Amino acid sequence: MPRATVKRTVGTSSRSKREDILAAAADHFGRQGYEDTKWADIAADVGVGSTALYHYFESKLHCLFEIMLDTLSSFRTVFDDVTHSHERFEDGFVALLHANFELNEAEVARCRVLVAEQGRLSQPRATEREEEARQRARSRVRELETAWSNYLSRGMATGAIPEADPQLLTRAVLGFYNSVWHWYRPRGSLSLSDVDEFFVPRMLMIVGLAPAPAPRAVS
Amino acid sequence: MPRATVKRTVGTSSRSKREDILAAAADHFGRQGYEDTKWADIAADVGVGSTALYHYFESKLHCLFEIMLDTLSSFRTVFDDVTHSHERFEDGFVALLHANFELNEAEVARCRVLVAEQGRLSQPRATEREEEARQRARSRVRELETAWSNYLSRGMATGAIPEADPQLLTRAVLGFYNSVWHWYRPRGSLSLSDVDEFFVPRMLMIVGLAPAPAPRAVS
Repeated sequence: MPRATVKRTVGTSSRSKREDILAAAADHFGRQGYEDTKWADIAADVGVGSTALYHYFESKLHCLFEIMLDTLSSFRTVFDDVTHSHERFEDGFVALLHANFELNEAEVARCRVLVAEQGRLSQPRATEREEEARQRARSRVRELETAWSNYLSRGMATGAIPEADPQLLTRAVLGFYNSVWHWYRPRGSLSLSDVDEFFVPRMLMIVGLAPAPAPRAVS
Repeated sequence: MPRATVKRTVGTSSRSKREDILAAAADHFGRQGYEDTKWADIAADVGVGSTALYHYFESKLHCLFEIMLDTLSSFRTVFDDVTHSHERFEDGFVALLHANFELNEAEVARCRVLVAEQGRLSQPRATEREEEARQRARSRVRELETAWSNYLSRGMATGAIPEADPQLLTRAVLGFYNSVWHWYRPRGSLSLSDVDEFFVPRMLMIVGLAPAPAPRAVS
């Protein structure tokens, strides 16, 4: 995703404390898992006391929902940028699939957190700020799915891909894509470009676009 | 999966108390989510006190791991049954994909629990019984993936499907399959046979088996 988003490097002074906390939390959640991460670990990384974190987030869960929101927003930005910059559906769709694999390590961690903890988005929360963040994140998931679904419908309308239930096709393609983040680890035996090479042609098959020598997303 | 497993209907007296608890817990975890399910809810369903549950399981997490173990075992049984009963890879593989969509409502709930909570399998536990159950469940995931991977390799060796990294192909196919359980709900607008019809041909494309009029798994 985020060639289009501002890079977040731990320790950059131009970044706000809130962003530092989100980055440290995403890193911990991604490596240790959300459950096993303690507020204190995040606080130590950012160099503040545990109670100071509560100035920014009501709870660890509130922080998780804000990370999900940011991640979903980055995906949406990439979606809009890529689809608007290609006239033909075929070109835009291929570029979109590649763009979603253009991620740095911090972004991969966020994707992993998003897919690992997405179940929490369906459980209503008791406190106002948690519930408000949860609902915003949930709406953002729906908006992103609707954007994909409309885009696929456009591909069907122009005859680029065969007719199918656009909502189900969206779930299939995004489900296949998201499955990567359940097992992929940076600095393992596979690079993200290996994964891209394996998955993109298969994603194209799923929607019914024959795999062609694909133009790479702008890097 | 479990055409091959014993049907578990709540209240059947031939079933042990332990199985009653596992069934009630899987149902609750599937509907409310693991996090939001209380021991007391499960105890109430089974008609025992909360403390009596501890006779069978050390904790809610221990119970979760045992549900995962059972679910993975059912998948393995189906895998062995179906693959052994077809000589040609092409027939066996198609039958296997269909068989994995032959589920009743309780089995769908277990699949949902498995995919929603799979992240917990990578977090070591402090107590012996939890850790032992976690490790067994984790081994069972690996064994199942290895079985799929070997089977796909066999398909490659016989020329039924194109050469590819069998481990990566396994992750791709199983990841695509598992993604269904993140969103599918029984008694929604789609039946499982609608899902089967949509997903199986696309799973066949992913591995490189052209979608053909597929023989249905024995029902």
